[in-house]
Amino acid sequence: MSLSMYQASIPTFRRTLTSLAAILAKGAAHAEAKQIDPSVFLNARLAPDMFPLVRQVQIASDAAKGGAARLAGVDVPSYPDVETSFAELQERIAKTLAFIDGLDAAQFEGAETRSVTLKLRDREVTFNGQDFLFGFAVPNLYFHLTTTYNILRHNGVELGKRDFLGA
Amino acid sequence: MSLSMYQASIPTFRRTLTSLAAILAKGAAHAEAKQIDPSVFLNARLAPDMFPLVRQVQIASDAAKGGAARLAGVDVPSYPDVETSFAELQERIAKTLAFIDGLDAAQFEGAETRSVTLKLRDREVTFNGQDFLFGFAVPNLYFHLTTTYNILRHNGVELGKRDFLGA
Repeated sequence: MSLSMYQASIPTFRRTLTSLAAILAKGAAHAEAKQIDPSVFLNARLAPDMFPLVRQVQIASDAAKGGAARLAGVDVPSYPDVETSFAELQERIAKTLAFIDGLDAAQFEGAETRSVTLKLRDREVTFNGQDFLFGFAVPNLYFHLTTTYNILRHNGVELGKRDFLGA
Repeated sequence: MSLSMYQASIPTFRRTLTSLAAILAKGAAHAEAKQIDPSVFLNARLAPDMFPLVRQVQIASDAAKGGAARLAGVDVPSYPDVETSFAELQERIAKTLAFIDGLDAAQFEGAETRSVTLKLRDREVTFNGQDFLFGFAVPNLYFHLTTTYNILRHNGVELGKRDFLGA
């Protein structure tokens, strides 16, 4: 017995997006309870040359939908990066989850050897599906989920490891 | 064709530990170049009730060795949490990598259904190997790698996504 590429990817994408939504909901509730303008959180960064929270969430969404689509061999859906509120970020996450839920396990058959080419800022990189999943899609997703968590924690939102790990 | 549990775990553990070592090396070099006491970085936190950098690295090591050992069905090696310098953290990461490199792919056969029970702070949790890997070991490893990165970035160390993703 062994794992399918579907089993190795989709539950992780689903769980991380669900945690991301729960973490943002706590951030929004904290802002409301403390009467802090939500934009303070949405624009918060851990360093001047790191992305703010809104962008962290958009990239997490991109990592999940890009990862799932490329492994399934379908076009990556394009979402404009226009969110300016917690509610709009929640909509984006829900849309990303709905896209992922629409993919079928059969589409991932053979995905471990499927060729995936990405245009990065300054270069083009080609992976096989397995290296793309474990060396690019999953690390990026966790990076942006954790950084979203860290931005909110740094700004006083009460979150714990259970919010990060999910159910 | 599909993935083995070895393929789904060990390359990730190895890559994240290697990135962690590289990120810490840049932190140590920055401290030296700017004549900042390394303990400022080693004790830095993103929030008063989050762990400092040293502890983030220790837990990342624990997630990797604990994950690998439990999936391979061998005892988890116990490392005392005594590091107080960048050099000692590097030794711990090297020791963790050496432990992981000593495990054989054959030990991971059937690991997806192996029962794994963890004693957490306030409860005991039992997973099958697959859920343990994707729902606990990997997320914890990425959480503590990313938080180490974020602590250093927040304190002015020049790091980029490539340092995080590795080669």
